[in-house]
Amino acid sequence: MSLKLYVDALSQPSRALLIFLQASNIPFTKCIVKLGAGEHLSEEFKNNISRFQKVPVVIHGDFHLTESVAILRYISRENAAPNNLYPKDSKLQARVDEYLEWQHTNIRANCAMYFRKKWLEPKITGEELSEKLLLPYERRMVDSLNDFENLWLSSGAFITGDTLTAADIWAACEIEQPRIAGYDPESERPVLSRWLNNVRKSLSPHYEEAHTLLNKLVQKSTMKKASSKL
Amino acid sequence: MSLKLYVDALSQPSRALLIFLQASNIPFTKCIVKLGAGEHLSEEFKNNISRFQKVPVVIHGDFHLTESVAILRYISRENAAPNNLYPKDSKLQARVDEYLEWQHTNIRANCAMYFRKKWLEPKITGEELSEKLLLPYERRMVDSLNDFENLWLSSGAFITGDTLTAADIWAACEIEQPRIAGYDPESERPVLSRWLNNVRKSLSPHYEEAHTLLNKLVQKSTMKKASSKL
Repeated sequence: MSLKLYVDALSQPSRALLIFLQASNIPFTKCIVKLGAGEHLSEEFKNNISRFQKVPVVIHGDFHLTESVAILRYISRENAAPNNLYPKDSKLQARVDEYLEWQHTNIRANCAMYFRKKWLEPKITGEELSEKLLLPYERRMVDSLNDFENLWLSSGAFITGDTLTAADIWAACEIEQPRIAGYDPESERPVLSRWLNNVRKSLSPHYEEAHTLLNKLVQKSTMKKASSKL
Repeated sequence: MSLKLYVDALSQPSRALLIFLQASNIPFTKCIVKLGAGEHLSEEFKNNISRFQKVPVVIHGDFHLTESVAILRYISRENAAPNNLYPKDSKLQARVDEYLEWQHTNIRANCAMYFRKKWLEPKITGEELSEKLLLPYERRMVDSLNDFENLWLSSGAFITGDTLTAADIWAACEIEQPRIAGYDPESERPVLSRWLNNVRKSLSPHYEEAHTLLNKLVQKSTMKKASSKL
């Protein structure tokens, strides 16, 4: 049965699913949805792909499903995935689930909101948010990143222990995002930095492929920051 | 193997898990954690129950797990639950998961934040938030409730169709919460109101038992509102 994945390279959970499918050797067709051009807001997308008008979406045969974590679980049930990114063992799976549920209103919400307020909305409106108005968003992101380091990275090389799982993929894709807005999540967080580099290395070459556009935008943002200091 | 559930009656996901376990006839020991008295913030709780210092938590044998949705899945795997609140069929389960993932940054985040700002924080600090500062929280909650009605309740009596599932329990427990703060989610939402009453009825008597304290607080809030209008 055919599996189609609708994604945009600037959507964090889109990248997570892309990397998961590729690292698991699960065949799929990649369908690009240009969020910047508003393709997800079209009537055609709403009626034929997803009423939620977001990415990622998968279509498996004629079954349409949204929400990256729900998709991860569905695909893991439907495919005998050749690795342990989403473990079958009940307790190990519960540990991965525990992170994937925790992240929504922590790492995901707070890194994404900072990225949105600092980089995305100014791109659309042409108006930058003042430092004062940006500060609460930055504080919440910093708190989440510190919590992430303290609560999740203290017991092994990866989130649930010594083995890389989907939890690490989902976390890393969110934590890369504020780099576009000029924030370095690795600065003064040696444990997080070591973990992030472990994840990048373990998932090569899929990880850097999924982050090609992001890394270009990070480079641009770094150059802009450096030139503004001259 | 013994199953202990740590809960507080004013925690929405605590109520959801309580109702799920009772409606599924899964035996467990209920352990009350008084959030109002800060019991979850003690060193004893942090070291012996959960490093996250939140409820709900389950301890199954010596396995400690947080995050209500992760707990729901774990318990459903470990127990041959006699009903279909968390369906075994892969596609039906994906539909329940889709809602449980969607709700985190929608219904859960926005109803809980309104409750927090309007009722909980003034209880702690003694200072009420001005209507102007409360407005963005109310708007986000109203948008989420409207989205919930439009996106999830248009195809059947329950969220995923004609059968009650865990998605309905988790949603209803969140949607009850702002009632404590004097907001009626059923007002001008006939579809949501019909659904909510279906859920309450289908899960009787566990549902009203879990909501005893909440309904007392709602009554108090309604009386306060009425007397301020005299």
